[in-house]
Amino acid sequence: MKIEEIENSKFLKSMTTEELSDLSQDIRSFIMNSVAKTGGHFSSNLGIVELTVALHYVFDFPKDKIAFDVGHQSYVHKILSGRAKDFPDLRKFGGISGFQKRKESAYDCWEAGHSSTAISGSIGMATARDLNKEDYQVIAVVGDAAMMSGESFEALNYLGTCKHKVIVILNDNNMSITKNVGGLSNMLSEIRVSEKYKNARNNYVTFMKKSKTGERVYEVTKKMKDAVKDHILDESVFTKLGLDYLGPIDGHNIEELISTLNTAKDYDHSVIVHVETIKGKGYEKAENDKIGLYHGVKPFNLEKGIVPVIHNKHQSWSEAIANHVEYLMGKHDDICVITPAMITGSALNKIFKHYPDRSFDVGIAEEHAMTFAAGLAISHKFPFLSIYSSFSQRAYDQLNHDIARMNLPCLIGIDRAGLVGEDGPTHHGVFDISYMMPIPNLIIMAPHNQKEAELMINTAYYHHDHPYIIRYSKNMIHKHSEHQDDVIEVGTWKEKYFDENNKISVVTYGDHLKEVAKLIRENDLPVNLINARFLKPMDEKMLMKIAQTKIIVYETDMLMGGLGEAMSFFYTQHNYPIELHAMGIGDHYVTHGDVRQLLKVEGLSIDDLLKKIKECQNG
Amino acid sequence: MKIEEIENSKFLKSMTTEELSDLSQDIRSFIMNSVAKTGGHFSSNLGIVELTVALHYVFDFPKDKIAFDVGHQSYVHKILSGRAKDFPDLRKFGGISGFQKRKESAYDCWEAGHSSTAISGSIGMATARDLNKEDYQVIAVVGDAAMMSGESFEALNYLGTCKHKVIVILNDNNMSITKNVGGLSNMLSEIRVSEKYKNARNNYVTFMKKSKTGERVYEVTKKMKDAVKDHILDESVFTKLGLDYLGPIDGHNIEELISTLNTAKDYDHSVIVHVETIKGKGYEKAENDKIGLYHGVKPFNLEKGIVPVIHNKHQSWSEAIANHVEYLMGKHDDICVITPAMITGSALNKIFKHYPDRSFDVGIAEEHAMTFAAGLAISHKFPFLSIYSSFSQRAYDQLNHDIARMNLPCLIGIDRAGLVGEDGPTHHGVFDISYMMPIPNLIIMAPHNQKEAELMINTAYYHHDHPYIIRYSKNMIHKHSEHQDDVIEVGTWKEKYFDENNKISVVTYGDHLKEVAKLIRENDLPVNLINARFLKPMDEKMLMKIAQTKIIVYETDMLMGGLGEAMSFFYTQHNYPIELHAMGIGDHYVTHGDVRQLLKVEGLSIDDLLKKIKECQNG
Repeated sequence: MKIEEIENSKFLKSMTTEELSDLSQDIRSFIMNSVAKTGGHFSSNLGIVELTVALHYVFDFPKDKIAFDVGHQSYVHKILSGRAKDFPDLRKFGGISGFQKRKESAYDCWEAGHSSTAISGSIGMATARDLNKEDYQVIAVVGDAAMMSGESFEALNYLGTCKHKVIVILNDNNMSITKNVGGLSNMLSEIRVSEKYKNARNNYVTFMKKSKTGERVYEVTKKMKDAVKDHILDESVFTKLGLDYLGPIDGHNIEELISTLNTAKDYDHSVIVHVETIKGKGYEKAENDKIGLYHGVKPFNLEKGIVPVIHNKHQSWSEAIANHVEYLMGKHDDICVITPAMITGSALNKIFKHYPDRSFDVGIAEEHAMTFAAGLAISHKFPFLSIYSSFSQRAYDQLNHDIARMNLPCLIGIDRAGLVGEDGPTHHGVFDISYMMPIPNLIIMAPHNQKEAELMINTAYYHHDHPYIIRYSKNMIHKHSEHQDDVIEVGTWKEKYFDENNKISVVTYGDHLKEVAKLIRENDLPVNLINARFLKPMDEKMLMKIAQTKIIVYETDMLMGGLGEAMSFFYTQHNYPIELHAMGIGDHYVTHGDVRQLLKVEGLSIDDLLKKIKECQNG
Repeated sequence: MKIEEIENSKFLKSMTTEELSDLSQDIRSFIMNSVAKTGGHFSSNLGIVELTVALHYVFDFPKDKIAFDVGHQSYVHKILSGRAKDFPDLRKFGGISGFQKRKESAYDCWEAGHSSTAISGSIGMATARDLNKEDYQVIAVVGDAAMMSGESFEALNYLGTCKHKVIVILNDNNMSITKNVGGLSNMLSEIRVSEKYKNARNNYVTFMKKSKTGERVYEVTKKMKDAVKDHILDESVFTKLGLDYLGPIDGHNIEELISTLNTAKDYDHSVIVHVETIKGKGYEKAENDKIGLYHGVKPFNLEKGIVPVIHNKHQSWSEAIANHVEYLMGKHDDICVITPAMITGSALNKIFKHYPDRSFDVGIAEEHAMTFAAGLAISHKFPFLSIYSSFSQRAYDQLNHDIARMNLPCLIGIDRAGLVGEDGPTHHGVFDISYMMPIPNLIIMAPHNQKEAELMINTAYYHHDHPYIIRYSKNMIHKHSEHQDDVIEVGTWKEKYFDENNKISVVTYGDHLKEVAKLIRENDLPVNLINARFLKPMDEKMLMKIAQTKIIVYETDMLMGGLGEAMSFFYTQHNYPIELHAMGIGDHYVTHGDVRQLLKVEGLSIDDLLKKIKECQNG
């Protein structure tokens, strides 16, 4: 059978175990070939093939409901629900999403993109089911790393005494994007060690449940066993929270998966099914990947594997920022670095290697990361917390209540700021400015090149008077070799182009500065260009200086709560009449696709800016 | 010794156990009498007297660092660090805070107000200590309810493999403000049952550690014991996370406390000390309080106890909202109610009693609460989630990523919105508007009386098209008996006063409407008064209608990101020249004290508004 021709997973039900294994191999090959062409989430989907096939065999989707935590490991599910044919357009504008998406398919009952929401959501769905006296299963598939995040714990703790049944599949590959952190991770390792005993026990349960007599014998002995098991090997955080637990089982063994899932299905109460999988399974380079190279991939050659490109002239923003932080760490031993599970993504590998004592990967735990930074800062360390814009939303309260309210000196790197493209609405880093601007004590900076970024980092460190935010995109930037040692004056903007005769001023920040400069230069436009490198505080002198011109504020972040709105408010409060046109993302979520395409759709391309400038010239 | 004369806790060190017990009684009496006069947090501080005395006996503050989670249970600590004399002004403007406050005393190394930050913060402090090669203890005192919140778990999980020692005191009174929820809570109950065994074991440890020989014998046997204990009674979530555990011990037995704390002090690694305390200890009515009546109190008569006041004509906003939600629940069985541990605070007791199957207290777990609501909504239930404004900050990402992004029909009640007074900066509900306005799909409503609130609740339920936010303060409002059954048009404002000849318009919302109306009436001001009952979407027709007048926007929430800023931006984007004066909280945190006083300090009193109106008349 051709994978592309799968319309739904009903055909699975009549297959033998062997046939299901063969199908799994075909799906695995399909994903390998397809994702290597389009890019997307690679390793996690190779690891979950058999598990998803077994889930579709045992359960009855879409009547039964399944929520994949984060959702980027739902490719096999997409394939089995008739979407293989859409894979050539995976994550492209107008194509299928790389995450579960409700409007795509009835098989997608849940959506996410941030981790650790699936159990909470599933409890909601299960509760609704029981209130409606309906009869279906609710399943949450959660990775081991996401299981260690606070919200998962809140949900598990709640589930422990909640009467509405959810099957939680712990998809344990002993890895988040890179490695795991913390006590729960160690506990899972211990469980793996005692696997043999477990398997024997689970096989016993499954065997006994296969016949009616066996089941009765099992029920009779179960109570006795329960009394014992609480104090023997079955102990885990989960059982301590009052949850039943099955596993660990081999997540690539179809037979074991099916029999255990059937057992879980028969339970009348919630249960954790601990499934061990191998991330990248079937593609050796991905199986051996320890730094997350094959987690999310751009198109690559399957035979050669991903060949790291050496850029001589360019670097990522993450690299530029990390390099200078490392440079300062060499001079000042009070600087510490924190990441919530993004060592590679935020280009911190070198820092972690060179300064292991001052480098802290806290796992997917943004809340803890932020308050931990507060604790360091209060004890006169200078933390640099690097966090993706979209995930920083998880730590809003900690930024406000802990860091900003106590006005603790530190530097927070907001990585992946702005539109990120293919990952779509859950990952666009377009809210950070709007939620941070109203928080007192914060200094918010957006550098346009490496030099400026270094001056800003120095300013945050040497001023040591406030929490500083530095935000940067996922774009590549020009590389300079010399480190800056100066600081800049907080709240000052810079004229890139200025002429007193110009009647129009464009105000922008970050990556846009270069593009807009090019636009002005190439079109020979009589337009001022202002680098609003401090979003907060704003440069009031500059605001007054350009107040006589028509002002265009060009942003690709949320319009509401953005720089344009703040500028407009400044002029209003000073009762200063102006003509100001703010460009930015309207009051809606932005879909997935190539950033250039998204900008066009949002009316925010550089051509749209040119159009706006022309209008102002003529208006 | 007079409690007021305590300057620091050095005098404790030479006291006998008996003297320490007597001192504890004196402190307890002092707190009872003082807090009954001033108001403040009552029960939690009575419960923690002996524990705090023992901590000050064993540890060396302020060299050692102590972080009280939430911080409202730090009164005994304040007394022992020389602040008893300031208790007549507790929580008053200019007086001492009801929480730990760094600028108040060197003994306060940490600040909070929201729960579950103390462990993360302490790990930060402990890490800094070790990097600096300093030698002091770091102690986090965390209540059992706060221990079940996600951030505490993230921190504990991290602590389980972190080499920097923190002593975590689990102050277990089997109660959050009211009762606990979830598997961890059940586990703690089980531990309490097996207490006898534990005590025997702990006494053994303490006894052996008292002499050098004993200690050596202990060390030799410890390894053997460790191997056994992992599979016997010592198992708990904590040990499973790799943390050592002592307890449970009697939190009112000074001797037991001191010996166990000494043991914990001697450990070279992190340890959880499980202390059982009785909330309200020593004041019978508080000890027997099951609904949190004595958690935070207004001044009351100690002999009579708190006498619930029956209001015939008035009610709290929480009551008004809950009453109407309950009315709708009677008509529609798809409505569910969720609270994160605030049944009494949000006046949900009747709902929980009458609709137990549809009422969900999830404990201090705002993240889970919000995503759980999303799960219910996705399965066609209509959740009403009631949450305090300040605590809603914990669920920013879940509101954005789960509820708003999926545009799930539901109603979120933002309780305690605006300035709350005595609890101060961590509790003022002044950020919700600014962080919610830029989130797409949200409808944000602020009713000015019961009738309007009911129309809004109906609109959210019957329209069933978006997530609706309804925000209300902690004030009392007029009570009406008849329920409204109509809806109102989304995005419409209302003229309270309007005359075409008026040259000034005041725009406000919520409780302010009544006050401002009175001001205008009593001073016979020629001023329009507009009820901006929908903060989002705004009423564009009305905005244009008043655009010819001078506009004053009167808010007591953050100026940045507030209604005034949004209105200013609207006019700017429409290139409409206006004179607009926005009144609101400037770019800083607001201190604690009586709300009227705070409003004066912020320049936001009703007199300040009158002054602004006069200026506009003359200007």
